[in-house]
Amino acid sequence: MVVYIDGEYVKEEDAKVSVNDRAYVFADGAYEGFRVYNEKIFKYEEHKTRFQRSLDELRIKHVLKNEIEEIYEGLKKANGYVKETLFFYIHITRGQSPRIHEFPHEDTSTGIYAFLSVKELNIQKYTEGVSVCTVPDNRWARCDIKCISLIANCMASQIAIDNGCPEALFVHDGVITEGTRTNVFFIKNNEVYTHAKTNRILAGVTRNTVVELCEANGITVNEFPLASDKLVEMDEAFLTGTSEEITPIVQISGKKVGTGEVGSLTKRLQKLFKEEVQKCCY
Amino acid sequence: MVVYIDGEYVKEEDAKVSVNDRAYVFADGAYEGFRVYNEKIFKYEEHKTRFQRSLDELRIKHVLKNEIEEIYEGLKKANGYVKETLFFYIHITRGQSPRIHEFPHEDTSTGIYAFLSVKELNIQKYTEGVSVCTVPDNRWARCDIKCISLIANCMASQIAIDNGCPEALFVHDGVITEGTRTNVFFIKNNEVYTHAKTNRILAGVTRNTVVELCEANGITVNEFPLASDKLVEMDEAFLTGTSEEITPIVQISGKKVGTGEVGSLTKRLQKLFKEEVQKCCY
Repeated sequence: MVVYIDGEYVKEEDAKVSVNDRAYVFADGAYEGFRVYNEKIFKYEEHKTRFQRSLDELRIKHVLKNEIEEIYEGLKKANGYVKETLFFYIHITRGQSPRIHEFPHEDTSTGIYAFLSVKELNIQKYTEGVSVCTVPDNRWARCDIKCISLIANCMASQIAIDNGCPEALFVHDGVITEGTRTNVFFIKNNEVYTHAKTNRILAGVTRNTVVELCEANGITVNEFPLASDKLVEMDEAFLTGTSEEITPIVQISGKKVGTGEVGSLTKRLQKLFKEEVQKCCY
Repeated sequence: MVVYIDGEYVKEEDAKVSVNDRAYVFADGAYEGFRVYNEKIFKYEEHKTRFQRSLDELRIKHVLKNEIEEIYEGLKKANGYVKETLFFYIHITRGQSPRIHEFPHEDTSTGIYAFLSVKELNIQKYTEGVSVCTVPDNRWARCDIKCISLIANCMASQIAIDNGCPEALFVHDGVITEGTRTNVFFIKNNEVYTHAKTNRILAGVTRNTVVELCEANGITVNEFPLASDKLVEMDEAFLTGTSEEITPIVQISGKKVGTGEVGSLTKRLQKLFKEEVQKCCY
């Protein structure tokens, strides 16, 4: 695979960055993940807006112009991709400086790293649903910033794997916030519940699309935190994410969600989401 | 400066690391900072024990042997240092893997980066004291792990600089926890107060040394959180850190601490600490 690093397209194994890049010693950078269907970036503007917001909140002085599209096109060409479903990762760091906590001089160039890889939807998980577990939400208070400071997410993801689950749900102060790299929705009496857009979640582009699809299709959406002891009362549940789209949850911490089968409203939302992808990218 | 990266001693400007190192994309590593006086690492065993604990808590499979001393000696020789007071930084990462949150295969080699630089005590700050401000403690819940996931510390350090202060104190749930890269102590009626060793602080080696010195010298130490509204009542305050040793605080958020001069018990502890350094390293 050819990746992009600070202005150059190089083989993954040759892609190196200075040890003085603040991403390497301080997690000082913001990232974004895009989905590409049929050679088009899905919800490009929404992702770009969120990326700029993350950079602004971290006070990284970088105004996004066309670099996202240019790097995407460069990576697509360099890797010879055609119509594959792709995942496009890009991060921007505060750049290189000697290791001192405060920001370097404001003329310091930001660093950019990006890769583009084939990532098809996991059809089995999408069709049959997944089991998840819960983990304490140890993350920092600014989960709304898509920062590369992801150690708590990595630790939680590994706990999920240790429990035989592909994903874990964070519990913060007794409420379900989101997954380690997904948002989470619940359904009760045909109404949809998901955490509000606070500092405790990273409101995903897929999450926001699902909320919009609900609103446009007469499905009530309640955006507030769900106490973890209410999980057992839910009829349906699903994860949303750039790579996961709408992936049903059929079991949480060893207990069935509803009947333990993928629910009907979840299936309806999967269909509405596929139509949205079709409309945007085909 | 010559630095150490993954087995090699190279010029700082040539020191590069793979973009697949998990430190670069996930902040997936632990670090330690040592002080060197008179060619000897101060409190080496305490730092090593803490470093191993950080690695263990992050589930990074790396058992420390003699690499710390060997790399220190290698860097000292390569840079031609003699008797300078030095700062030795080392971090160990979970190594290189494609970017997926869960841990890579357990055979994956860890990554190591280290540098050794001259860092004399700032005599003016040490003698005259410093002003600090307070900032919300946005860090993750495992501040007791010395993880390179330092974005919240960097943001807070910059807020300190913006406020004309060299350091900021974190306020979490209404209590003072610690500084962005230091611990903090207060004195009231000749008793010493500092935050207990909980998950909310990184109990520094200098902090622990000061607590021990107090206990050995008949000075009462209270280890519990200080509510931020009690700050105005304090007679004295000081920061502790590997580089700061015991640096007095004379002003917090624009208000004098006590008389606004360096206090007598602070001076006594500075002297006791200097004697401890003398005993350990000379």
